[in-house]
Amino acid sequence: MSHSSPTIAIDCMGGDHGLPVTVPAAMAFAQAHPDTRCLLVGDEALIRQALQQNAAPAGQFEILHASEVVTMHDSVEVALRRKKDSSMRVTAQAVKDGRADAAVSAGNTGAWMAISRYVLKTLDGIDRPAIATALPNQKGGATTVLDLGANVDCTAEHLLQFGLMGAALVSAVDRRAQPSVGLLNIGEELIKGNEVVKQAADLLRGSGLNFYGNVEGDDIFKGTVDVVVCDGFVGNVVLKSVEGLARMIGAMMREEFHRNAFTMTAGLAASPVLRRFRARVDNRRYNGAALLGLRGIVIKSHGSADAYAYGQALQRAREAVLNGLLEGTIQRLDALRGRAAGAAAPTA
Amino acid sequence: MSHSSPTIAIDCMGGDHGLPVTVPAAMAFAQAHPDTRCLLVGDEALIRQALQQNAAPAGQFEILHASEVVTMHDSVEVALRRKKDSSMRVTAQAVKDGRADAAVSAGNTGAWMAISRYVLKTLDGIDRPAIATALPNQKGGATTVLDLGANVDCTAEHLLQFGLMGAALVSAVDRRAQPSVGLLNIGEELIKGNEVVKQAADLLRGSGLNFYGNVEGDDIFKGTVDVVVCDGFVGNVVLKSVEGLARMIGAMMREEFHRNAFTMTAGLAASPVLRRFRARVDNRRYNGAALLGLRGIVIKSHGSADAYAYGQALQRAREAVLNGLLEGTIQRLDALRGRAAGAAAPTA
Repeated sequence: MSHSSPTIAIDCMGGDHGLPVTVPAAMAFAQAHPDTRCLLVGDEALIRQALQQNAAPAGQFEILHASEVVTMHDSVEVALRRKKDSSMRVTAQAVKDGRADAAVSAGNTGAWMAISRYVLKTLDGIDRPAIATALPNQKGGATTVLDLGANVDCTAEHLLQFGLMGAALVSAVDRRAQPSVGLLNIGEELIKGNEVVKQAADLLRGSGLNFYGNVEGDDIFKGTVDVVVCDGFVGNVVLKSVEGLARMIGAMMREEFHRNAFTMTAGLAASPVLRRFRARVDNRRYNGAALLGLRGIVIKSHGSADAYAYGQALQRAREAVLNGLLEGTIQRLDALRGRAAGAAAPTA
Repeated sequence: MSHSSPTIAIDCMGGDHGLPVTVPAAMAFAQAHPDTRCLLVGDEALIRQALQQNAAPAGQFEILHASEVVTMHDSVEVALRRKKDSSMRVTAQAVKDGRADAAVSAGNTGAWMAISRYVLKTLDGIDRPAIATALPNQKGGATTVLDLGANVDCTAEHLLQFGLMGAALVSAVDRRAQPSVGLLNIGEELIKGNEVVKQAADLLRGSGLNFYGNVEGDDIFKGTVDVVVCDGFVGNVVLKSVEGLARMIGAMMREEFHRNAFTMTAGLAASPVLRRFRARVDNRRYNGAALLGLRGIVIKSHGSADAYAYGQALQRAREAVLNGLLEGTIQRLDALRGRAAGAAAPTA
């Protein structure tokens, strides 16, 4: 195991599709990155079969057997207490044991968060792990938003930690030295924000992060800042809402172009343009949410990911390893503690 | 003044555009509804000038002079305490005095809420007014969402009241007898909801409303329920986020079709289809948020509304008057109090 030739542990059984998506995605990923190894976790016989079907190059793959699978419907309790040999658990354990540098699963979010937190533990200075994802913005880049649902009732301290973890993630994955951080709030024209958000703004202002100030919902898509911080309730509702709107728009556009022979001809004429447009708003490109604040790199793929999208999640895991996400997060936490100690010490 | 021939008080000075939008919109509206009168509020000379430019039929219009204007940048304090003869204030006062059945303004939301609350007061049984708007959904209808930012820290009781007010609004404007009400929450796979939301679900379940249960962000656009209830922080962030995404998608599509001569020709070929598509997702159709819980019907138009969109806000005001929004809300509040009293009484 070394950062220059990373090993990614892959829960091959998780997600809506399991092996038919995870194994081909891992193979394409390994082919694109000859320096990278894949630790395929799950039912050994089934994984071996899937590998043979796809004629895998042997060198970059290793299989780690796990006898159980956490389903999309298993409660956190079942996943954590009853299925101790689940592919999810063995995937997280591989990182804990130093056999892999990062863990990826497309399984049930709550279970994946609970298991990786239980196995890996949180970093010193982090009270609660958070879930972060990137959303495409109008500037042609992406805005990283967190928390997306791991934490419902947050204190100002938690929001500060989210800001720090988000900045570390963007530094590592997008290689930006001082990513800008915005705090999600509501407009000036109304009663401004709640108490927790006001306190969090004060903490972020004194944190040494590149804090932009308050941002509003539309700033996510304007690309006003690199990182948008909010509590998990708000983040989850926003993510689901924008996914819902995007699906509705897509469905309505398809309906309009499939209305009759004339509209279908028009659709054919416009199809190269529509294809380019779809590629730009294709959220599969941004698949791979990061579970941050843990003593290990953990990525959650969308449950419904296809092989292309799953490959993007693997790619994010690799980038996070190569660019030292963990080390970066720890450095930022140390710097924050240093500032706090400095502020507490009497100034001579 | 009578419900069969309603009078709408219109703040002609408010919004990004003021008179050039509000007066032509009022004239088109009056022409479409010969039973309806418009009380045009603002600078009398300027309104008279705008009316003449547009050759208005005299019978349906009356002008009410107001010497001041609340700008988009005025604080609530300035709007409320210093500009006592603002067009906004005089518009709300017209409803209070029984000269009009509903008040419409495109001015600054915070000021409009504060002024209409100060002038009209809240209904018995309503602690806080709320802002509600309709968003288009995949079923071809609209989902009403509230609160959108009037209330940042809400109790379960407040959320219950929002549910009741939202149901009354949908009953009046969309003429549905028992609109379904959903409570915005986050997914089952994660730690479920916060304490306030859990308590609110219990209250809604026992309220006599047609309570569906929890819904998620994407249910707004699926059209799972008629009314989605959330606190004002969440509602405001969701609204701004989906507006931001819609703008980004629109901008990207325009960019793709304007890339070169070939894509522009494709755009021309597809333009009838794209026009139909745009009409379906056109949020101007749903312009006109309702400020609910007040002793009078108050509508807020989007600040940037054009004459078409502003006309929709006037139309919503008219529907709310004709279908007895106020009476409906009061009846529902009485019924809720009746249930509470019944529940408190010993069962023989």
